[in-house]
Parts: sequence; structure tokens; C-alpha cells
Amino acid sequence: MTGVNEFEQRAAELIEAGRRLYQLGLVPATSGNFSARLTDGRIAITVSGSHKGRLTFDDIMIIDAAGRSLDDRRSSAETGLHLQIYHRFRDAGAVLHPHSVNATLLSRGRRDHLVLTDYELLKAFPGVNTHECAVTVPVFANCQDIPALAAEVDDWMERHEGPVHGYLIGGHGFYTWGATVEDALRHVEAFEFLFDCELRAGGRQRL
Amino acid sequence: MTGVNEFEQRAAELIEAGRRLYQLGLVPATSGNFSARLTDGRIAITVSGSHKGRLTFDDIMIIDAAGRSLDDRRSSAETGLHLQIYHRFRDAGAVLHPHSVNATLLSRGRRDHLVLTDYELLKAFPGVNTHECAVTVPVFANCQDIPALAAEVDDWMERHEGPVHGYLIGGHGFYTWGATVEDALRHVEAFEFLFDCELRAGGRQRL
Amino acid sequence: MTGVNEFEQRAAELIEAGRRLYQLGLVPATSGNFSARLTDGRIAITVSGSHKGRLTFDDIMIIDAAGRSLDDRRSSAETGLHLQIYHRFRDAGAVLHPHSVNATLLSRGRRDHLVLTDYELLKAFPGVNTHECAVTVPVFANCQDIPALAAEVDDWMERHEGPVHGYLIGGHGFYTWGATVEDALRHVEAFEFLFDCELRAGGRQRL
Amino acid sequence: MTGVNEFEQRAAELIEAGRRLYQLGLVPATSGNFSARLTDGRIAITVSGSHKGRLTFDDIMIIDAAGRSLDDRRSSAETGLHLQIYHRFRDAGAVLHPHSVNATLLSRGRRDHLVLTDYELLKAFPGVNTHECAVTVPVFANCQDIPALAAEVDDWMERHEGPVHGYLIGGHGFYTWGATVEDALRHVEAFEFLFDCELRAGGRQRL
Repeated sequence: MTGVNEFEQRAAELIEAGRRLYQLGLVPATSGNFSARLTDGRIAITVSGSHKGRLTFDDIMIIDAAGRSLDDRRSSAETGLHLQIYHRFRDAGAVLHPHSVNATLLSRGRRDHLVLTDYELLKAFPGVNTHECAVTVPVFANCQDIPALAAEVDDWMERHEGPVHGYLIGGHGFYTWGATVEDALRHVEAFEFLFDCELRAGGRQRL
Repeated sequence: MTGVNEFEQRAAELIEAGRRLYQLGLVPATSGNFSARLTDGRIAITVSGSHKGRLTFDDIMIIDAAGRSLDDRRSSAETGLHLQIYHRFRDAGAVLHPHSVNATLLSRGRRDHLVLTDYELLKAFPGVNTHECAVTVPVFANCQDIPALAAEVDDWMERHEGPVHGYLIGGHGFYTWGATVEDALRHVEAFEFLFDCELRAGGRQRL
Repeated sequence: MTGVNEFEQRAAELIEAGRRLYQLGLVPATSGNFSARLTDGRIAITVSGSHKGRLTFDDIMIIDAAGRSLDDRRSSAETGLHLQIYHRFRDAGAVLHPHSVNATLLSRGRRDHLVLTDYELLKAFPGVNTHECAVTVPVFANCQDIPALAAEVDDWMERHEGPVHGYLIGGHGFYTWGATVEDALRHVEAFEFLFDCELRAGGRQRL
Repeated sequence: MTGVNEFEQRAAELIEAGRRLYQLGLVPATSGNFSARLTDGRIAITVSGSHKGRLTFDDIMIIDAAGRSLDDRRSSAETGLHLQIYHRFRDAGAVLHPHSVNATLLSRGRRDHLVLTDYELLKAFPGVNTHECAVTVPVFANCQDIPALAAEVDDWMERHEGPVHGYLIGGHGFYTWGATVEDALRHVEAFEFLFDCELRAGGRQRL
């Protein structure tokens, strides 16, 4: 059984995550949304429309594993994308969706996936022990029909062999997750670094 | 009737807005100017020449709806541009004019307007519910004759069909507004993000 | 007559200027140096080799108008460049020398001067009332012989018609000044913004 | 003989160094590692896997000059690279390994070394008195076999004539050192500035 304290602890972590990601420029305006799963399966998640750099406890609500509000408030419009991740990955305890310029520019290109290879920082992801590996990051077309988008993401993950640590949505930032909020933050920092490298290297390669 | 407290509250919000925008690099030197409308129609506005990142209450003055100083101080040289917005948009409660490198570079180009489309972040603007829309941002030539420039802006808005959320002035930053200072700040963050994307994508496209 | 208090006040301003410029990334490692002139003509100046982002009162020393140490410490190696400015401009009360990537890249090009025009931010400089002006910024080749470099700067200023607000040294940052430390800081922010614009626009123009 | 206090002092400096480097964006996720040598030859070094921007005393462990843990914890996987530097340079008191985008991009190119010349900031390195010098920065291919990589680095240093102040590892950041943590931090700031210049200048040159 989950007490009030566990919710408050996760909520405090999401508030702090927002403050950090805003300082890094990754959640401008009211973009982005965050969540953390409690041990009983319920989910603490940011409410719709709040500024992620200045979250308060009032901006974190609670939903059940099916996404139903447990406190009469409206959760993020993209709640379904969080649920897809929690359903598929039993060990996912937190999901973060930042919205950076780098992710936006990379994802607006024509490609349907990105392959990251030969970066030492790939070792920030679980199970990666060497830069000599290839981490695939799928890119999905942006879509306001969240159930359809969640199904497309889930279908890709079903078909894809090998681990996946995050994905891009066209013109819309990226999703990543981890066992804890701290783990998910580490994955955000790693992806943002790698996207920055890819974008800047790509710009030069096209010359 | 508007009491002293409402003015002080708006002034405090403008001071905080300046601090935030300076941290984002959007009001270098003494560039930029800000205002907020009181419920009785008078306007709290930054005085001429102050540093927007380190505003104090002494840097916020009060003018009437026609722009006349109500306290013997001189308001920003661009007061007329603020008034144009308040006159045209009944629900505008705050106007922010930041001065970023991105806006300066974008606006110095030859085009007379910018069309932003296919960005999730467009949903930061009121009435926008999907990335599949086109937000037009007009670009006006810079001009030291503020009444003439205000008339040109007003004329464009009169002729333009569909909503407008902000505009660029050549080599001179941008204007945006909102129902509250917080709303206007959100629009600044959204525009700056989108201008950054456009500029960096544009650089690559021209290659 | 100048008391201890005036020196301490100027020193406190230079310490704060260093903190701000470091936050803006303009004085990495131990680059840069700053000074302020007292009313009796003596000069408060940073000692050689200190980190400008973490200055203490011990890092600010005092020299006479001819550059002689009045407290047995060694002033910045570039003291002669500060003196040239104080000698030529009677109303200069502070000199700041930041060392940014933008200034370094711009100044390493082949040109011997830069002309800034059509930027609203040019109005940050004294006597500039319109963007329709041209501010010339000379670029001098870097040189470890400071008296020779100071003479070259002085000679250029003697021959140049019209006001000058700062200059670049090849691969070595820029110098600017003002009536007060605050004024000089405003000029630093304006130049850095304009150099950033020029560099990024220049990169695109060459495409 | 080294007391507890010397270890605690060095550990505090490494914690503060991490905080600063994280603010500069140089140690994203859990990248990077730092160390400082005590007067008796033992070494304070960051433990494996910690976030360098939020280090605590628990994240700093102690090893002997041969790299053996003296407190049962596991030191950074790259401990061998730190030891190589301490063995070769008697006056090295601290080693810092940051992981920046600039260093990653520069080091992923095909070249086997970089020559930095004609930058005033080169004077940040010990023994450099003029911009008219050439500082060589070797680039080693990334490798998970740390003893082999350390041997390759040592071999290059044995053969190279003239001083060396740091090196790059492909897709993996850079190493630099100094007599104190403060000195090593100054070298990090100088290298990062110079790498930024090289990368941006290089991008333009290829146009």
C-alpha cells in the first residue's frame, strides 16, 4: 500500500527535475511533461498547462494505471504516452518528456530513426558498456491523436530488436525514462548531449 | 477603481520578468521594455534607459491610456507601440519587448513576414490546438518615428486575417503580449524557441 | 581629494563586474582585466593573473596615472592599454577588457576594422540616437609589446574621425570603456551582442 | 605525513570543481572524473558512476599511487589515465576530465592531433608567454582497455618534444591537469574556449 509520503517524495523529485531541465533550456513555455510511478501502480504526473520550470505540489496530480484521474484534475494531454512506457517496461519508474531545440530540429528531418554510435556517453544508458555499439532512436511523426501515437510507438517497440532508451516526435521533443527520476534525468542529459553532437556534426557533414 | 496595490503587484511582476529575460540573454545592455495594464486602463511601464535585468520599483512608472506620464517621468521611447497593442486587443494585460540575437538576425533578412508551422510549441499560443497550423509573424522595417511605426503595425493587423501573437522589427527584437505578465512571458519563451529553430534550420536549408 | 571609500567603492564595482562577465562566459580562465579611475586620477585595476569571475578586494590594486604601482603589487600586463584610454578620453571612468569566443573569432579574420550598422542596439552607445548610423570598430594585430600596441591604438584614434566606443585585438578579445563601471558594462553587453550577430550573419552570408 | 584534513580539503575542491564544470555544461549525465594528489602520494578520486555536478564527500574515495582502493570502493573506470599523468608529471597535483560537446566533436574528426596557435588565451598554460607559439593537443582513439590507452598516451608523451597540457580522446572529452585543482580548472576553461574557437572557425573555413 502506498502512503501519502511516497507520492510527496516523487512529486518533490518531479518539481526539482523541472527546475533543472528549465535551467538547461529544455522545457520552454509550458512544454514538456513528467511522471513517476508509485509502488502500487498509481502514477504521479504533471497537470496540463503548467510551467515546468516553476512547478509546485499543486501542479502534480495522481492517476491510476489506466490513466484515470484520481483527484478530479486533468493530467497532461500526453498521459497516454507515459502509460505506454509504464505498461511495456516493468522497471520504468519515471518518464520525462523535454522539448529542446536540438530534439525539435533533429526530429523535423525526413528520417524515421537516428543511430547513435561511437560516443563514450552512450555508456550513460543501462546495459551499454562500450562506445562501440549502436543505439537506435526512432522518430515518430507528430500527431494530436495520442492513443494512435501511443499505439504506433508500442508497435515499433514490439517489432524492434534490442533495447530502446528513448524516442523523438517530429517537431515535438523527446521521451526517455528510467528506474528513478534521477536515472531518467541522466538519460535526458545524455540524449540532449548526443542530439547536440549529431545536429552540429550533421550540419558540418552536409557542407 | 485601481489602488496602489494593483500597480505595485504589476510592477513586481515586470521586475521579475526582466530578471528572467536577462538570464535567458534576451535583454542585453538597456534594450527591451515592458508594460502591464491596470484594471482602470492606466499602464505601468518601464522608464527610458534602465537595465531590464536589474529593475527596481523606481524604474517602473505610470502613464494613462493615451501615453501621458502621470508622474513626471519619461517612459520608454517605444511607448506608442505598447499603446497600439492595448488599443487593439481588449484582453491584452501585458506587453513584453525582448531583444534577442535570434530575433535580430531573423528580422534583418529581406522577408516581410515569417510563417511558423508544424511545431508542437505553437500550442503555447492561445487558440492553437495543433501543430498543423500556420502562425504568421510580420516583420516591420526598423524606424525611429514611433507613431509612424505604430500606425504601420496597426494597419497590418487591420488587414491581416486570423490571429496574431507577436511581430518582429528589423534588427530590433520582437513584441508579444498576453492577458497577464505570466502569459506574455510564456509567449516570449515560445517565440524565442521558434526563432532559434527557424534560424538554425534556415541556415542548414540554405546549404 | 580621494578617500579610502572611493577606492573601495570602485573595487567593489569591478569585483561585481567580473562576476557578471564570468556568468556571461566573457572572461574564461584568467583572461580579461578591468579598471576604474578615481577622481584624483589614480586608477584601481585588477592585479596580474587573477580569475576575473572570483575577484576579491586583494585582487584590486592601485596605480598612478602613469601606471606606477602605489602598493608594490604588479598590475595587469595590459595596464598600458588602460592608460591610453584614460589619457585620451577625459570622461572615461572605467575600462573593461573581456575575452569572448565571438570577439576572438571575429578579430582573427583578415580585416582591419568592422562596421556595425542598422542595429537598434547601437543606441546603447553614447551619442547614438538611431540605428541608421555606422559604428567603426578597429581591429589591431595582437602584440605582446604593450607600449607599441598602445601607441598603435592611440595613433588610430588620432586619425579616425567620429566617435569610437571600443576596439578588437586579434585573437585576444576587446576593449571598451564608459563614464562609470555600469556604463562600461552596458557597452560590453552591447558589443558582445553585436559581435554575436555579425559572426552568425557573416557565417550565413558566406554561404 | 598526510592527515585527514588534507584529504577533506582536496575532496571539497573536487566537489566544487564538479559544480562549476556542470554549470558550464562540461560534465553531462555521469560523464567525467576528477582527482587530486595528496602530499604522501595517495590520490583522492571520484567514485565510479556519480553525477559530477552534485558530488558529495561520499563520492570521493582514496587510492594509493598504484591505483588500489584504500577504502573498498570502486574508483572511476578511467583511474589508469589519472595515474599515468601523476607518474609522468611530478608537479601534477590534480587531474580533471570533462566531457564537452566541443571536445567530442573535435575529437571525432580524422586528425591525430590539433595545433593551437595565435590565441592570447594560450598564455593560460604554464610557461606560455606569447600567442606566437604552437600548443599541440594529441587526439587518441577511444578505447575501453584503459591500460592500453594509458600506455598509448604515455608513449606519445615520451616521444613528443615540448610541453603538453592536455589531450583529447575520440568522442570522449579531454584530460588536463595542474599543480592544484584551481590550476587544472583554469586549464579546462582555456581548452574549452580554444576548442570552441577551433570548432566554429573550422566550420566556417570548410565553407
